[in-house]
Amino acid sequence: MPKISSTIDAVAGFQVAGVHAGLKKDGALDFSLVVSDVDCVTAGVFTRNKVKAAPVLLDMERLTQNPDRIRAVATNTISANACTGRVGLENARSTAAMAADALGIAADQALVMSTGVIGTHLPMDKIARGVKLASANLGADWRATAAAIMTTDTRPKLGSVKGKTADGSYTIAGIVKGAGMIAPNMATMLSVIVTDAGLDVAEAQDALRRATAQSFNRIVVDGDTSTNDTVLLLANGMSGATVSSDDERAEFQGALDALTRYLAQEVVRDGEGVTKFVTLEVIKAASDGDAERIGQTIGASLLTKSAFYGSDANWGRIVAAAGRAGAAFDPDCASLRVAAGEDRAQDRAGLEIFSGGMPTDYQEAEAADIMAQPSMTFTLDCGIGAGQATIWTCDISHEYISINGDYRS
Amino acid sequence: MPKISSTIDAVAGFQVAGVHAGLKKDGALDFSLVVSDVDCVTAGVFTRNKVKAAPVLLDMERLTQNPDRIRAVATNTISANACTGRVGLENARSTAAMAADALGIAADQALVMSTGVIGTHLPMDKIARGVKLASANLGADWRATAAAIMTTDTRPKLGSVKGKTADGSYTIAGIVKGAGMIAPNMATMLSVIVTDAGLDVAEAQDALRRATAQSFNRIVVDGDTSTNDTVLLLANGMSGATVSSDDERAEFQGALDALTRYLAQEVVRDGEGVTKFVTLEVIKAASDGDAERIGQTIGASLLTKSAFYGSDANWGRIVAAAGRAGAAFDPDCASLRVAAGEDRAQDRAGLEIFSGGMPTDYQEAEAADIMAQPSMTFTLDCGIGAGQATIWTCDISHEYISINGDYRS
Repeated sequence: MPKISSTIDAVAGFQVAGVHAGLKKDGALDFSLVVSDVDCVTAGVFTRNKVKAAPVLLDMERLTQNPDRIRAVATNTISANACTGRVGLENARSTAAMAADALGIAADQALVMSTGVIGTHLPMDKIARGVKLASANLGADWRATAAAIMTTDTRPKLGSVKGKTADGSYTIAGIVKGAGMIAPNMATMLSVIVTDAGLDVAEAQDALRRATAQSFNRIVVDGDTSTNDTVLLLANGMSGATVSSDDERAEFQGALDALTRYLAQEVVRDGEGVTKFVTLEVIKAASDGDAERIGQTIGASLLTKSAFYGSDANWGRIVAAAGRAGAAFDPDCASLRVAAGEDRAQDRAGLEIFSGGMPTDYQEAEAADIMAQPSMTFTLDCGIGAGQATIWTCDISHEYISINGDYRS
Repeated sequence: MPKISSTIDAVAGFQVAGVHAGLKKDGALDFSLVVSDVDCVTAGVFTRNKVKAAPVLLDMERLTQNPDRIRAVATNTISANACTGRVGLENARSTAAMAADALGIAADQALVMSTGVIGTHLPMDKIARGVKLASANLGADWRATAAAIMTTDTRPKLGSVKGKTADGSYTIAGIVKGAGMIAPNMATMLSVIVTDAGLDVAEAQDALRRATAQSFNRIVVDGDTSTNDTVLLLANGMSGATVSSDDERAEFQGALDALTRYLAQEVVRDGEGVTKFVTLEVIKAASDGDAERIGQTIGASLLTKSAFYGSDANWGRIVAAAGRAGAAFDPDCASLRVAAGEDRAQDRAGLEIFSGGMPTDYQEAEAADIMAQPSMTFTLDCGIGAGQATIWTCDISHEYISINGDYRS
């Protein structure tokens, strides 16, 4: 298991900056640049929402045209630049153009990301100031850069991991924001991951797709999906370590999987009003797809999330959610365990609360003790196949309602 | 438009009773019987959840075996008798048998419904007392009967409508409980509808299926689906009015549609912690199915429901929810209007807040005035087809979390 660091040391050939461009009223960091000294092989995974923000449309276009020569990513907060029509697309393009200008690269070598309220136009004067300040302050302050992409996040979320090839060792580093929902206030989950390893375009896209499927696509907070969700991977090869053999590809994938899983879990932990971190492990489902459908349905169930918040071991809500997931499920074949903590291995030793279509004779007090913990793991054994999936989710609290009831004002 | 009464006068040949059997601690009504003097043609619509409660399994079996000779429905609260295995099925059977015994009918002429916590066995001694008390107090107190099926509902929900055939006039009357969620605390939506009109089995099943599709299946509170959801229609023909011609079938359908729509809306209005009643009208979608998918997704969106609660005209969340509904949707072709009140006709004159992929230049103050109303109607024009659907939903409040965070204790 690759060791994840919660900090980022220098990644060869990458410079970053997080600045206050005047977008946020309180003087907080609100604009950032991630820049590579040389062309990067770049991969992207974007929201599946049919309503796609201007920056998403622009980045998708650029990654189709030149996935092997991207140099920079500019990110703004406050405005998501979504549902902004032709003007919004022009603003996204000129944001990229201004950044390219300041960095001495071609306009189509810059990508953009936006997060914030949708339906508002980018304040281009402030974006210009952000570009000017950030490009003049490039360095290795990844924490400030992670802070500069936050919306209602309470803390910057970043991490890194190391790997090696025959040529030497490399670093993979990433920042993420989310504010606890996959689609916080439509303010989106954004992540930029960089590596100084050498990859080709196909390898990068495949690796990011696999990593996202088992990390960012496995967290559920409210089931909503943003107009702006974006995950980018930039590889510049500056470490001199090139991923070429199958073993090296496997090691890189393992490291990227572990880093994205860590970042995804950080998003859940820092959720709006979140008081409980819940791991849902679905095993022995008819297929992996069924296991994921069941986990996602349980994770998105308001009744289940309310029970987590109330520290109520309401297994009935979990089983009933599984029953409506649109997957093969038979309660008479299923069993459910709960254990404190996040270590999935513990589940095997967890408290069995449901089995063979009925509750076990477990002691409520014992279950209540587990449910009172800040983190717990449920293992739902469907007893019908070999499919499995793990979902990370959280409870829903009064604070969530407060935060989201009146976000725009 | 048939006129709905919020009360129920006598329905020929039907007697009812709601009593306190000792199931609820506070002495409230908790057990009920609905009884016909003669055999009834009976139709049922049941939960699609793969986890079905014992009473649902028993009723489904009985309606397959003898849909033309049902005489009674016994309903208990407190225990849902779901996830209770073989013992639960036996308890459901003996509840029916005790009721049949007391009423002098055959055991397989009685149906049962249960609502409450799942995973607990029926307290058969109290069920026996309920049967004894209710069968000894049969009359026309429909309000008490509606009160006796409530869980966290705040008020009994009942209604009736009249119709006529060449032979004379008939009444359709119904009671419902829901507590605001389609699956309140897994405590279920239950409804019993009776009519003294004459119908054949195929007509009854078809009419109930159609009526449910445009009423109980069009309300969204938290998107959860119960293990016990049940809607029953009993027709005993005692009015002498028999539905036979196509015109008579159409009039009966219209009356049943209107009554079930009224009862479904009552469920939403009486929702747990509900402060806003919201009508979502989706028009010009690619198909009726797409329109319903879009409406259901908007209605179940936590972000959207939080915005309703906060009186925030957050059209972005509504459009984004439509974009992830799995239906054909193009924001550039869509427009969104909001109007105060529940009258769908008003929508045409409502305030347009989104059009052609962008917000209109509406005044936030004007939108805020509408959002501050206890009821409002959104009309989403997808601009791509002829499909439409209307969904009734509500906001999510702090109180919802409180009620559901700690239901079982």
